Amino acid sequence: MGKLLTTTPQEDGFRMPGEFEKHDGCWMLWPERPDTFRLGAKPAQQAFVETAVAISHFERITMGVSARQFSNARSQLPSHIRVIEMSSNDAWMRDCGPIFVNNGQEVRVVDWEFNAWGGLDEGLYFPWDQDNLVPRKVAELEWLDRYQVPMVLEGGGIAVDGEGTLITTTQCVLNPNRNPHLSLTEVECYLQRYLAVEKIIWLPRGSVDDETDGHIDGLCAYIRPGELVLGWTDDKSDPQYEINQEAYEMLCGERDARKRPFTIHKLPNPRPIYVTAEESAGLDMVEGTHPRPEGLCMGGSYVNFYLANGGVVVPLYGDPADRPTLATLQALMPERKVVGVQSGREILLGGGMVHCITQQQPSPNSR
Amino acid sequence: MGKLLTTTPQEDGFRMPGEFEKHDGCWMLWPERPDTFRLGAKPAQQAFVETAVAISHFERITMGVSARQFSNARSQLPSHIRVIEMSSNDAWMRDCGPIFVNNGQEVRVVDWEFNAWGGLDEGLYFPWDQDNLVPRKVAELEWLDRYQVPMVLEGGGIAVDGEGTLITTTQCVLNPNRNPHLSLTEVECYLQRYLAVEKIIWLPRGSVDDETDGHIDGLCAYIRPGELVLGWTDDKSDPQYEINQEAYEMLCGERDARKRPFTIHKLPNPRPIYVTAEESAGLDMVEGTHPRPEGLCMGGSYVNFYLANGGVVVPLYGDPADRPTLATLQALMPERKVVGVQSGREILLGGGMVHCITQQQPSPNSR
Repeated sequence: MGKLLTTTPQEDGFRMPGEFEKHDGCWMLWPERPDTFRLGAKPAQQAFVETAVAISHFERITMGVSARQFSNARSQLPSHIRVIEMSSNDAWMRDCGPIFVNNGQEVRVVDWEFNAWGGLDEGLYFPWDQDNLVPRKVAELEWLDRYQVPMVLEGGGIAVDGEGTLITTTQCVLNPNRNPHLSLTEVECYLQRYLAVEKIIWLPRGSVDDETDGHIDGLCAYIRPGELVLGWTDDKSDPQYEINQEAYEMLCGERDARKRPFTIHKLPNPRPIYVTAEESAGLDMVEGTHPRPEGLCMGGSYVNFYLANGGVVVPLYGDPADRPTLATLQALMPERKVVGVQSGREILLGGGMVHCITQQQPSPNSR
Repeated sequence: MGKLLTTTPQEDGFRMPGEFEKHDGCWMLWPERPDTFRLGAKPAQQAFVETAVAISHFERITMGVSARQFSNARSQLPSHIRVIEMSSNDAWMRDCGPIFVNNGQEVRVVDWEFNAWGGLDEGLYFPWDQDNLVPRKVAELEWLDRYQVPMVLEGGGIAVDGEGTLITTTQCVLNPNRNPHLSLTEVECYLQRYLAVEKIIWLPRGSVDDETDGHIDGLCAYIRPGELVLGWTDDKSDPQYEINQEAYEMLCGERDARKRPFTIHKLPNPRPIYVTAEESAGLDMVEGTHPRPEGLCMGGSYVNFYLANGGVVVPLYGDPADRPTLATLQALMPERKVVGVQSGREILLGGGMVHCITQQQPSPNSR
């Protein structure tokens, strides 16, 4: 255990499970950057605590934190949440963290390159060296073997059903600021070999305002094989309107790896959220970090939820749609308990949502 | 799991096992202080690698390392050794690390205070805040519950047989620079309650040159219940001579918790080791760190070995006694394979030996 493997998951009989499958636990990173999170990250820390506690009712959770913030994180989190020392450049475990694969008996880590959503070309900060070590460190901690892939990919850039289908966006994964050295064929080859998928569905664009060059996880999410929740708006003046329509139409015309048509549930987005003057003033100004001025639109979404064992943890925004959304999701997933995170706005002000700050570790036998 | 307990191991039916009992693994910390270890700690890192590799033939091993040195440690150690991020102020896992207790089904951590062998009064460096967090971090990593004790104690300051007996030195544990607020009765009460021992044997002094105020682990070690190896010299001019005689006579007159007399094997020490001008010049000079000038005598010992599962890992010093010592230890422990660490001098130049840089994690049921 702990080896770097030179084979691929596909040839070894491993696959990336769907998020809806059984987990051994969930990984998060503690927020502390004062140029990402306002007021020394204290409100965001409370939001991450709320998220972690919500998830911890369903499964084990580990929070990675810098040495500097260890004692603070430990004292803010309840003791049943594991707090371990792990450096990072920010707090987005979904994107810089490991992607796990399993084979019914064993779990392994797939370690993709991470370049802070665009590297020196529109990436959100510099450097990202510690983020890039996170998958390796998680693998070490869990005594797991690891695959390393010479391709940039964030966990928020893909959605899989664990049965051979992967949905992603060309805007993100084929962006020249991710993998300019790779052709479409090569990118597909890496996705197929390292996640063991057969069918890749390319949507042109993802969420319009999410700073990630169109991640899929602000646009749609699997709730079970063949079944998706898709962010929605009927307001034609909303810049997201056209993207949602486009995604809906494309997905309606597709079949997944098992030849199933998709069942698609439209889930209305919250109203656009704009950074206030006070919120913007709470950020440290650092050269090289993506600025968030007053009036900037942060596109919130309810589909950026986290599927835990028997649970759904959903970001809320203080929006009139919060409560109906929870009811809608509960009706769609009666087998799970739906729980809201009230402080979703504080996470969104940092650039992400509940799904962005979590990463599930599937059980060896997750089906 | 992960709770801070307010009970004591004694009342919960937990005890500290002997080092000779079965382990789940071994913990170490990566050396990097340039004021403790010469030449930027590079020779010491090689010595720690040699030690870790030697132990890894017998049991799982985890190396804690700072974020700064993570990639270097990871690349210097073979992949079957787990490397995890863990800050510390130096590299002495025996002393700042956790002491584990078990009850046949579960392992828990006992978290003593650590003050760098004397705090502001002759401690070896300042600060020691990260060292002091190590037991808590190990407990978190292993999902173990933890006891916290308001008393300074280093793992190298005690030797136990797992059957109710503890041997220590008044020079160390009753030193005013450790627990000036505690009486002898209170100290004994903490040792009894948190390690579940019944009989405490107080030797007056430990090793003369070890900077720890007389740790027991440079003087003697259990190899099985009732049976000790004791460092020895017949040279009356050696400052250690009188201490060894005194310990031998006291132990010969004692019985352990089970009323057994001790079987004591005298093990001749290596010749005294003196810091050379070149070695001293390789150290960073830092105010507040214990200096190691040319000519300083570092008292090496062979009893500072580590008992692994089926193994004995012994520090060697390039001394004529190295080889006969391995043979002696092999004859004393035919049930184990005895292995030498050739680079013992480099560890000793930093102030310790093999036992000082390791800490065993017993199995839940270790007998």
